[in-house]
Amino acid sequence: MPDNVLKLGIPAGSLQESTAELFQKAGYRITFSSRSYYPTIDDDEIECLLVRAQEMARYVEQGILDAGITGYDWVLETGADVEEICELVFSKVSRRPVRWVLCVPEDSPVRSVRDLEGKRIATEAVGLASNYLKQHGVRATVEFSWGATEVKPPTLADAIVEVTETGSSLRANNLRIVEEVLQSTTRFIANKQACNDGWKRNKLDNIALMLSACLAAEGKVGLMMNIKKEDLANILDVLPALQKPTVSSLSDADWCDVYTIVDEKVVRTIVPKLKSMGARGIVECPINKIIE
Amino acid sequence: MPDNVLKLGIPAGSLQESTAELFQKAGYRITFSSRSYYPTIDDDEIECLLVRAQEMARYVEQGILDAGITGYDWVLETGADVEEICELVFSKVSRRPVRWVLCVPEDSPVRSVRDLEGKRIATEAVGLASNYLKQHGVRATVEFSWGATEVKPPTLADAIVEVTETGSSLRANNLRIVEEVLQSTTRFIANKQACNDGWKRNKLDNIALMLSACLAAEGKVGLMMNIKKEDLANILDVLPALQKPTVSSLSDADWCDVYTIVDEKVVRTIVPKLKSMGARGIVECPINKIIE
Amino acid sequence: MPDNVLKLGIPAGSLQESTAELFQKAGYRITFSSRSYYPTIDDDEIECLLVRAQEMARYVEQGILDAGITGYDWVLETGADVEEICELVFSKVSRRPVRWVLCVPEDSPVRSVRDLEGKRIATEAVGLASNYLKQHGVRATVEFSWGATEVKPPTLADAIVEVTETGSSLRANNLRIVEEVLQSTTRFIANKQACNDGWKRNKLDNIALMLSACLAAEGKVGLMMNIKKEDLANILDVLPALQKPTVSSLSDADWCDVYTIVDEKVVRTIVPKLKSMGARGIVECPINKIIE
Amino acid sequence: MPDNVLKLGIPAGSLQESTAELFQKAGYRITFSSRSYYPTIDDDEIECLLVRAQEMARYVEQGILDAGITGYDWVLETGADVEEICELVFSKVSRRPVRWVLCVPEDSPVRSVRDLEGKRIATEAVGLASNYLKQHGVRATVEFSWGATEVKPPTLADAIVEVTETGSSLRANNLRIVEEVLQSTTRFIANKQACNDGWKRNKLDNIALMLSACLAAEGKVGLMMNIKKEDLANILDVLPALQKPTVSSLSDADWCDVYTIVDEKVVRTIVPKLKSMGARGIVECPINKIIE
Amino acid sequence: MPDNVLKLGIPAGSLQESTAELFQKAGYRITFSSRSYYPTIDDDEIECLLVRAQEMARYVEQGILDAGITGYDWVLETGADVEEICELVFSKVSRRPVRWVLCVPEDSPVRSVRDLEGKRIATEAVGLASNYLKQHGVRATVEFSWGATEVKPPTLADAIVEVTETGSSLRANNLRIVEEVLQSTTRFIANKQACNDGWKRNKLDNIALMLSACLAAEGKVGLMMNIKKEDLANILDVLPALQKPTVSSLSDADWCDVYTIVDEKVVRTIVPKLKSMGARGIVECPINKIIE
Amino acid sequence: MPDNVLKLGIPAGSLQESTAELFQKAGYRITFSSRSYYPTIDDDEIECLLVRAQEMARYVEQGILDAGITGYDWVLETGADVEEICELVFSKVSRRPVRWVLCVPEDSPVRSVRDLEGKRIATEAVGLASNYLKQHGVRATVEFSWGATEVKPPTLADAIVEVTETGSSLRANNLRIVEEVLQSTTRFIANKQACNDGWKRNKLDNIALMLSACLAAEGKVGLMMNIKKEDLANILDVLPALQKPTVSSLSDADWCDVYTIVDEKVVRTIVPKLKSMGARGIVECPINKIIE
Repeated sequence: MPDNVLKLGIPAGSLQESTAELFQKAGYRITFSSRSYYPTIDDDEIECLLVRAQEMARYVEQGILDAGITGYDWVLETGADVEEICELVFSKVSRRPVRWVLCVPEDSPVRSVRDLEGKRIATEAVGLASNYLKQHGVRATVEFSWGATEVKPPTLADAIVEVTETGSSLRANNLRIVEEVLQSTTRFIANKQACNDGWKRNKLDNIALMLSACLAAEGKVGLMMNIKKEDLANILDVLPALQKPTVSSLSDADWCDVYTIVDEKVVRTIVPKLKSMGARGIVECPINKIIE
Repeated sequence: MPDNVLKLGIPAGSLQESTAELFQKAGYRITFSSRSYYPTIDDDEIECLLVRAQEMARYVEQGILDAGITGYDWVLETGADVEEICELVFSKVSRRPVRWVLCVPEDSPVRSVRDLEGKRIATEAVGLASNYLKQHGVRATVEFSWGATEVKPPTLADAIVEVTETGSSLRANNLRIVEEVLQSTTRFIANKQACNDGWKRNKLDNIALMLSACLAAEGKVGLMMNIKKEDLANILDVLPALQKPTVSSLSDADWCDVYTIVDEKVVRTIVPKLKSMGARGIVECPINKIIE
Repeated sequence: MPDNVLKLGIPAGSLQESTAELFQKAGYRITFSSRSYYPTIDDDEIECLLVRAQEMARYVEQGILDAGITGYDWVLETGADVEEICELVFSKVSRRPVRWVLCVPEDSPVRSVRDLEGKRIATEAVGLASNYLKQHGVRATVEFSWGATEVKPPTLADAIVEVTETGSSLRANNLRIVEEVLQSTTRFIANKQACNDGWKRNKLDNIALMLSACLAAEGKVGLMMNIKKEDLANILDVLPALQKPTVSSLSDADWCDVYTIVDEKVVRTIVPKLKSMGARGIVECPINKIIE
Repeated sequence: MPDNVLKLGIPAGSLQESTAELFQKAGYRITFSSRSYYPTIDDDEIECLLVRAQEMARYVEQGILDAGITGYDWVLETGADVEEICELVFSKVSRRPVRWVLCVPEDSPVRSVRDLEGKRIATEAVGLASNYLKQHGVRATVEFSWGATEVKPPTLADAIVEVTETGSSLRANNLRIVEEVLQSTTRFIANKQACNDGWKRNKLDNIALMLSACLAAEGKVGLMMNIKKEDLANILDVLPALQKPTVSSLSDADWCDVYTIVDEKVVRTIVPKLKSMGARGIVECPINKIIE
Repeated sequence: MPDNVLKLGIPAGSLQESTAELFQKAGYRITFSSRSYYPTIDDDEIECLLVRAQEMARYVEQGILDAGITGYDWVLETGADVEEICELVFSKVSRRPVRWVLCVPEDSPVRSVRDLEGKRIATEAVGLASNYLKQHGVRATVEFSWGATEVKPPTLADAIVEVTETGSSLRANNLRIVEEVLQSTTRFIANKQACNDGWKRNKLDNIALMLSACLAAEGKVGLMMNIKKEDLANILDVLPALQKPTVSSLSDADWCDVYTIVDEKVVRTIVPKLKSMGARGIVECPINKIIE
Repeated sequence: MPDNVLKLGIPAGSLQESTAELFQKAGYRITFSSRSYYPTIDDDEIECLLVRAQEMARYVEQGILDAGITGYDWVLETGADVEEICELVFSKVSRRPVRWVLCVPEDSPVRSVRDLEGKRIATEAVGLASNYLKQHGVRATVEFSWGATEVKPPTLADAIVEVTETGSSLRANNLRIVEEVLQSTTRFIANKQACNDGWKRNKLDNIALMLSACLAAEGKVGLMMNIKKEDLANILDVLPALQKPTVSSLSDADWCDVYTIVDEKVVRTIVPKLKSMGARGIVECPINKIIE
């Protein structure tokens, strides 16, 4: 047992697998057991605990956990006083942040939050919804919803404040988005006292560095190509290099090899251009991590 | 569309299937669609709505629903002012009521609710737990638990108030039951105004009659046997008849046939006795409903 | 191997399980093997073969099969010249017949089959659709659809002719029913020559008798009750008996026992009435078959 | 805790569910828990333990269990000295007993056990196979097979001794049955000393009585019909009654009601005959248990 | 909404997942929703539509779609007049093309298509089969098969024309391949008018370039090794380089580093040779795309 | 059909998938069919056969197989005289070897194998357990266990010898490990005669080379970074290079690019250090195989 240990909360449920995958890419192997809420991790200086995303910030604030992974929405909802180490932009379905939105039935006359005076609003995030109404000077009843919130209007509620990624569940229930209440991404948060402890702060920073390196690499690839030396300058000009391109010699002395890192999403537009400018043997390779 | 309609809440989730099965036995076919929270029922005078058991009493109290099926625990937790039409004693795993219990880790020094002064208690039923503590004059922090409550002690809570049927999940988490907070069974509840409406009251009573007839029949069977006329009096004496036994003639005039309804659980003890007293051709038949 | 054998087609796919269950209730155990299209049946005089419902009538007409179970829709679609032994009114989801309907998008101007002149219609039943158009004097393009027909309008087709039971898939795709093309139920069909063979005709009739006895019993139950002899005449008057009620003596000579068969769906209305008229110990029992 | 307790072995695996279902029908509710090999039973005088069918007889012989359910094959294979209380003829796939058969590849020259001199035989039942070879004076190598025995010939074995119900797995592997080594059904066995204990013997007999009553009822049904009094004698003559038919009066005095128990499999042949002899309102009812 | 949009058909069913994976590798993220036949794609210039492979060519020919992915077999079967942009050689089970074959039962006397005069042939591809028979001057009945075609001979058909990848389903049904009717691979097809539109043609070519780059990379890997400068020439001679090898310097000046792309399937034979010729630190790396 | 063929046993069951994946990485595609125990492999010189891990060594010793993959535990248990080609350290759950351990109930007085004199030990590996007892001079009864061994103590056995990876199943059954009997990893074994055949020996060595290259690469990655030429020497000093780092020029002449292979598990500690020493654009890339 090491002297120093970082108590780390892993979010149970929808973020659990993506969190474990991210840590695995970052070099930390987290193993879950169906019988235990204490996942193991191959770093003796870390102790993991599975905690609901909704409760994470509360336990981090209380110091029961030194740090944890959870959504910005639930940090706000609980109102917990915690330190944000870094933002982790990942999500199972898409790369977009989740959105909490105010919705009403398609045919409702409600057009703005101000039309909700005196109405009933159902939501799983009573704090978020109440604050939003207050900011806009609206008095309404906010009822906690135990689930299936999107089917409640119009019978069981006049409006809802609900989380959505793609909007498809809202459309399927004939709901219209009135306003966006909050955009939320995943965060790596820490207890404030833990941040003042030198050893823990350094540990938190190293973990954050590795997690960020993985996320930064997610949409990037290595691009390698053979270029005639006479074309080199022109082609380097159009390469959207994230770092300095590597230029190596080839067995044929008139040619050289260029390697660089680019955003995956520009590949489909830049490759036809590179080919037309004379690049040959263009090869795309995967990368795991990048620290710029 | 009929003039009179009863709006009936069906509990979504763990009670959903058993509720639908009970209604089916009672002669009402409820059909769920994966796309809708409005199940159909083959009675034009009833409109169904799927609602969480936790929220049922609230919506019945508000009159959004005329009646609904939910647990006694959630009626108490919400504190809703509703009318109980009848108790429905059924449950998927067993015939026993569910119990809400106060639990601590096996090795905790806590022996009674009075030892919880100043402690943290996690529970999904904050109202039930707070009332129980108050009744015993104990001040403690009750925190809402979003789930997996039974894994929280001792790290995330000192004690929990949790629901259990068989106790196996508690044992698996090394928890000890300190006290029972509540026993709860399923109830058929109604809005108070609906109960004062003659048509609705009659409709509610008829549904209750049929549901109760099915539940009463669940543990009962018909028992039919051939008996020599000379043995009839003796055997009728030992038959634990729920109603008057039917005596029919047989093709052989020295014998008669006796049919009666008995508890299924006495069959295994009474059949050997009946056989030893001369009963022959003992046949057990299933029954669907019984109204005594 | 018996001298006479009836070659019987069992419909593969959506009707397969319900057909096997019906035969099981009727006293014939059909066993499927994942490795074979020749199910076994515990009657040496029958040989089963799994055949698509769509192809059943064709093979019965050709005499490859003596008889088979399939839908009336596919009998019509193939135009096969076969003998209908009896109708079998059962269906997995409901007791209603399936319907083939002409559908268009909700916002289509099409209001009647006559508005389809020159349009494109997608359907799995090209024959049914073409005949229907012809009967109404409409010329349009009918295209065979390999599946997912209900998602084709408006991009891939102007209208569709599609089968539906509850209509929920049509609603989910924003389709409106313009007209009903056909109602269809399951049929027990036979080859015409087989019907002229005495042995086969008798075998077919016996199977039909047992299948029909099961289907007739599906919505019926036995109702048994104790009645004071003085109330007997009155109660017999209101009993919707399908046959003559059985009246037996009870151990208490002032009472008698009445047993009768009623439609299950009247139980929920008649039981309260019987109780109010003095019937006691009302017991509902299941029945398997009924031949009136 | 009662003074007397019967330790009962329930077979884990393929017989587990059918054993629990049979006990449930017999009036004993056995509940399995995924976390425990000690199923609960609603009879305080019985303690259950899940044990492999292969090991059951061994533990019953040693007295670790008082009684157990297992196959006759495994009783023989272990050579355990136990008492057979009764045979329980049930099986998930069919009503036929399982068979252990000696098999070879379709094209093997082996035609009888005598052709196996010097060959290699793979089997999960080394004792059964060795005894069989010995009885026929054949010397051969019998190798224990850990599973998938039917795929071993011809590469990994010359022949196998394998269990089969329908033979379909043998056919799929192109194996030919040379001889049947053993037919086996399920047995209720007991420890010899337990049988000499009065209380345990009586308990075992009562359980056996109820289990047998359920199995006896499995293929039987009640048949009820209205008969004109003048036809009664003729019809009673053809009724294959398992017991004395019950004759009750009807509201119409010219008719009477006859109720009797018959084998389910004769229903499909006797019902057409009864109808032709004048029986009307023929109703088939299910039965649960029968003790003749 | 951009001015120009390419309407692209994605094949529903067995090719759906592999198509989406190929597009993902090519840099286009296609997202399916269980509720919609309009998958989303992260390119505003493309609109996707899920269409059966069997119907794809028809809708591309009609111009409802600009382009689509489908099998060559279904292009031929429909006889649609479309432009083939490129061949996409991929398949879920293997890299081999699918084959449509003419099959008969193992013991059938049929040895060639010419033996089928007057016979019945069942197939899902009536057009392909009829053309094939016509080409060989054979007159026979071709019947459309709704599925499970391979179980039809000999009872329901004399021969079949069926698709196969590995032949295992044919062998399991004891069928023998008589002749191969067609080999088919996946194609990227386009509407002829769309091909004449400059913007659409360029878009189609760019997509084809990226798809082909991924498929070309599928069986290839990067091979990197340290080589003594004196061995360089010899080793470059034996390297099956797809492009010019990259030669880089090492920290140790007597050695250099060589990187090249090779077919994955030669790695297992060339690596032992390279090692024996002095290469050290041989490393194989994955690649995503290659444009030669 | 080639002249020379290597008969290779693939372990059925828990090792099957990981074996196939390892071969796939090594360049050999093994395809399983649900209908066959003869997997195909894309190397004409190899024939595969699925064999239980427990029986593998026996069939390799007998020469029915030339080689096979199995656990060291089962090689010992069978006592087969085979040649070990190489150790393959892989496992589905973890990278740790499996362990056979002697266990007793938590509260058993047994503290060492010597306390087992006269006791009953249940195990699936009767040979291993008996040898272990013999080595320690202990006489006890060893009974073959057909499964679920860990639930047997204390009722059905006093102790068990059981395999474990993480120990979680033992803990869940309240068992305590007394001693470790054996550590076991996966082995590539061969028949002794096959090893003396030149062609087979060479084939075995080549397969072993490729398998080992994949396993060696599993925990390794490529690390690439830009370094100022003036920092190069210092950074090369701290790089834990598994081979000579590759140094390439960059477009900016003051910088160079360094590529090297490192253990994945040091990345999380070395990357912060490299960054602090001036490395920029640090990129981690995956590798497939490494031959040092």
